[in-house]
Amino acid sequence: MAVIYRVNMSDLTVRAEEPGDGHSELGGRALTSALVAGEVPPGCHPLAAENKLVIAPGILTGTAAPCSGRLSVGAKSPLTGTIKESNSGGTAAQALANLGIQAIVLEGRPADGRLFRLVVTSDGVQIEPADDLKGLGNYDTVARQFERFGQKVSCISIGQAGEFRAAAASVAVTDIEGRPTRHCGRGGMGAVMGSKGVKVIVVDASGGRRPAATDPQAFKTAVKKFADALMKHPLTSQTLPKYGTNALANVINEAGAYPTRNFSAGQFERTEAISGEKQHDVIAERGGVIAHACHRGCTIRCSRIYVDEKGQYVTKGPEYETIWAHGADCGIDDLDAIARMDRLDDDLGLDTIETGATLAVAMEAGIIPFGDAEGAIRLLEEVGKGTALGRLVASGAAVLGKAYGVARIPTVKGQAMPAYDPRAAQGIGVTYATSTMGADHTAGYAIAQNILSVGGTVDPLKPEGQVELSRALQIATAAIDASGLCLFVAFAVLDDQNAMDGICEMLAAHYGRAYTADDFTQLGKATLIAERRFNSAAGFAPADDRLPDFFKKEKLSPHNVTFSVPDEELDKVFDFA
Amino acid sequence: MAVIYRVNMSDLTVRAEEPGDGHSELGGRALTSALVAGEVPPGCHPLAAENKLVIAPGILTGTAAPCSGRLSVGAKSPLTGTIKESNSGGTAAQALANLGIQAIVLEGRPADGRLFRLVVTSDGVQIEPADDLKGLGNYDTVARQFERFGQKVSCISIGQAGEFRAAAASVAVTDIEGRPTRHCGRGGMGAVMGSKGVKVIVVDASGGRRPAATDPQAFKTAVKKFADALMKHPLTSQTLPKYGTNALANVINEAGAYPTRNFSAGQFERTEAISGEKQHDVIAERGGVIAHACHRGCTIRCSRIYVDEKGQYVTKGPEYETIWAHGADCGIDDLDAIARMDRLDDDLGLDTIETGATLAVAMEAGIIPFGDAEGAIRLLEEVGKGTALGRLVASGAAVLGKAYGVARIPTVKGQAMPAYDPRAAQGIGVTYATSTMGADHTAGYAIAQNILSVGGTVDPLKPEGQVELSRALQIATAAIDASGLCLFVAFAVLDDQNAMDGICEMLAAHYGRAYTADDFTQLGKATLIAERRFNSAAGFAPADDRLPDFFKKEKLSPHNVTFSVPDEELDKVFDFA
Repeated sequence: MAVIYRVNMSDLTVRAEEPGDGHSELGGRALTSALVAGEVPPGCHPLAAENKLVIAPGILTGTAAPCSGRLSVGAKSPLTGTIKESNSGGTAAQALANLGIQAIVLEGRPADGRLFRLVVTSDGVQIEPADDLKGLGNYDTVARQFERFGQKVSCISIGQAGEFRAAAASVAVTDIEGRPTRHCGRGGMGAVMGSKGVKVIVVDASGGRRPAATDPQAFKTAVKKFADALMKHPLTSQTLPKYGTNALANVINEAGAYPTRNFSAGQFERTEAISGEKQHDVIAERGGVIAHACHRGCTIRCSRIYVDEKGQYVTKGPEYETIWAHGADCGIDDLDAIARMDRLDDDLGLDTIETGATLAVAMEAGIIPFGDAEGAIRLLEEVGKGTALGRLVASGAAVLGKAYGVARIPTVKGQAMPAYDPRAAQGIGVTYATSTMGADHTAGYAIAQNILSVGGTVDPLKPEGQVELSRALQIATAAIDASGLCLFVAFAVLDDQNAMDGICEMLAAHYGRAYTADDFTQLGKATLIAERRFNSAAGFAPADDRLPDFFKKEKLSPHNVTFSVPDEELDKVFDFA
Repeated sequence: MAVIYRVNMSDLTVRAEEPGDGHSELGGRALTSALVAGEVPPGCHPLAAENKLVIAPGILTGTAAPCSGRLSVGAKSPLTGTIKESNSGGTAAQALANLGIQAIVLEGRPADGRLFRLVVTSDGVQIEPADDLKGLGNYDTVARQFERFGQKVSCISIGQAGEFRAAAASVAVTDIEGRPTRHCGRGGMGAVMGSKGVKVIVVDASGGRRPAATDPQAFKTAVKKFADALMKHPLTSQTLPKYGTNALANVINEAGAYPTRNFSAGQFERTEAISGEKQHDVIAERGGVIAHACHRGCTIRCSRIYVDEKGQYVTKGPEYETIWAHGADCGIDDLDAIARMDRLDDDLGLDTIETGATLAVAMEAGIIPFGDAEGAIRLLEEVGKGTALGRLVASGAAVLGKAYGVARIPTVKGQAMPAYDPRAAQGIGVTYATSTMGADHTAGYAIAQNILSVGGTVDPLKPEGQVELSRALQIATAAIDASGLCLFVAFAVLDDQNAMDGICEMLAAHYGRAYTADDFTQLGKATLIAERRFNSAAGFAPADDRLPDFFKKEKLSPHNVTFSVPDEELDKVFDFA
């Protein structure tokens, strides 16, 4: 029987309960959004006691389903003011699932400045004082937990940024090596965890066991079908293992959609120096790790381990988005400097996308010049010191830009756009504008059809077809984010009917009942509807579902295009709601 | 014939034009809001070239109507994202009116960092480079203009905060003594002026003449009726001249509505030390000036001149709101320290309400302790230096609070609440929540009926009647803000039919046609409707017309009340629209 732990940080009590009406089959984003939308007052301040941080493994997490180890973290976002779910790999989701835990809900708020550790075992959740962890980065924080609880536990933690309740603060999850390299990055979930006074959650699954499907034999068959589809698709079987997510750098740059120097151009003249191919060669030459899995059961293995010239560990292989944010968007072409920033972000507990975009806005503001890698590193170091400048860097692009009077700020609902310029990939622009969570590529990854020719093709430079594309992707993504499957399985799903069939057959065997693609679609729709309702009650209106004006006015080189999907079309994305 | 000057700061050209359809009879806020709502794209960034800064004297400004020297400045606000109008006394409005200028509209945006002076004479508007003024405060800025253009000109200028395009930056207007002490404070109009690269507008009215009414004799009669009403009302004839606006300190404190230490209590134990009575005695003893007029023709004379122990000029007599913001709200009880901060605010070009409220949030964040006057002065000095901390202080309470992870931020639509706690004066809470411009007491001053027993009485602690009260006041205020009359005439209007009759008769004689109280009401309604339409298109929804949650949850001493006007009642304020 699945259990939800309610951890009240006001009175430091824990309550175990069964999932409520209609929640028993939910997991991941479907569950975090249902609980947040159902229980958090939409008008509350995101850092107030009334907000709740919901931590939930996906529906299939912990099973033998390949690539199913995602952990969802949801709350009202201090960055955007919307509902938010952010998910991550790492080992904690499987550990929670093995303990039969459907969700941990952090509620209330302790007296300011007090810090706690939650220890989650087969006996339940213990709250322990952890003031000794105050001011530590994620690396030191988790190292102390492994010393005390052994190497097999998983950690969910915040760095200094989360303690400061900074709007760009992430929630870190340890990887297979016990490093805090996987992050629920977007939307400031780390700030909410910080406001709850929870520095780290240690999950010891040693007394747990893998969740069993209702129909184990059918599940096994479905797993094989799904795994085969993943192994057949060239992206999930070849490109991602070999080059990682940063395989995209050359592709997106070639498409003229690689935002350069705070979204002022669509191509970076030094992309080659920070490309996936280059990263591959550097890691291979130095003896790092290629094709690394961030959690058990991942067959794609897009992760990697980045080492310095002496072969010493620096950080995980920075992802495409991270390399772009600290690279092209800042005019920086130094892969080693970018890796140092990735390490700093992970240690401080910062969303790498928001942070890189903020550094670029700091450059636009003239705080440091574009291309100044050492200056960017110094700005990041300010975060750990808690200076005013550091607070600004950790608060995201919109806040820093506002404080410095910058007019060109590439955000939607206060969240920075990721590594695809919406003018040269208009489908992703529709997703940025309309997503329930601010600018977010993962909410409906139209790059697949706009640029990668996965799941069909839609001309990236024209407005036609983008709304339909984004709508379908946002619905499917909400369901995938509930399943616990890594979003990268979508490449196979889009091109191979067996992949979608495999997912439905896994869910059918898991639940022990019929489960169709339509059920999956309904799960996505229901999640989006709940999220939209929350946002509407929190004050978001159709006119908030827009890109910043400058994307409609400034032409992007080399295609000389502006974002041209009409506002009234954007308002149709959620016409099913 | 009235003229509107369009000053294009992109190509540095000036165009004179006649007012467009339906605009010929408008002035003040009615004109600024009509032009902004009609011409500025609601979705534009407030600091982008597409925004426009509209500077307009009131309809009656420049005439012999008493207290009619208000200058309205409007734009899309960088602080709130809403439409904004902020008005001020001083001498510039009359100077513009004497030149037959209905409005000056600053459009476009020059290359970053360039600064200009506009020189306005009977020959038109000249644009001159003014890079030599870069980095100067308002005092030095206007002193240089008086040196060059003589003592009779008026100046409209920005300080360092405006140059930084800081969201709390004001537009300063010189007073009769040529000091930059009157400010269009709220909503960051100074940041918009800064984004246009205009450091100062020098108005030389020497070639102009007083506007003539269509029916001069009837105008004279109406002026007398109106002036008599002002001279009869005890607030406008006795209290305000003698004690200034700060007469309110003891009254509001006694009512338990004096927000103390970032809105955590309703009474300040040291109010006596910063009260209007105390201020009166200090100024009188030291040889300052009591009952001073901020512009020619003011019969109320609520202004004063504050001097130090040696009798040397420090600043104008700080207003009630300013003394509250830097005093009770920060736990500071030192009138001299508050006067120094008022001087700093005026020189830097900062809204004193927003700035004081921001200092209080900085204290809540722990940057300095409550009550630390020297610390507060140091924070203000950071603004002039352009440091990250200074940028935050100049960006307002919402931004500083967000950067420091503060959950209790007393703002609506990003603008800080003024000196009346909405829990102990629920009518003003309705105005804060629903005003088209964020929390603003002047938008519908329900304190009159809630606490002062002017225009009737409405129990301040109960929700009943507050929506009707705020609605009526917001309509009347929008019309008064169009007329060019100081809002303080409203005390007489609320209690004495002759005052309202006098205004209508002045307008009738001015226009040369019938003008009724209903026409006045329609003017107010039309202005609000245009503003609401702009805001809606800019993304504001009913759920934005709310107070921060903590006002509904935390009980305010000494009455132990929360804000209890229901949301659905708030949504009825604009039911006429």
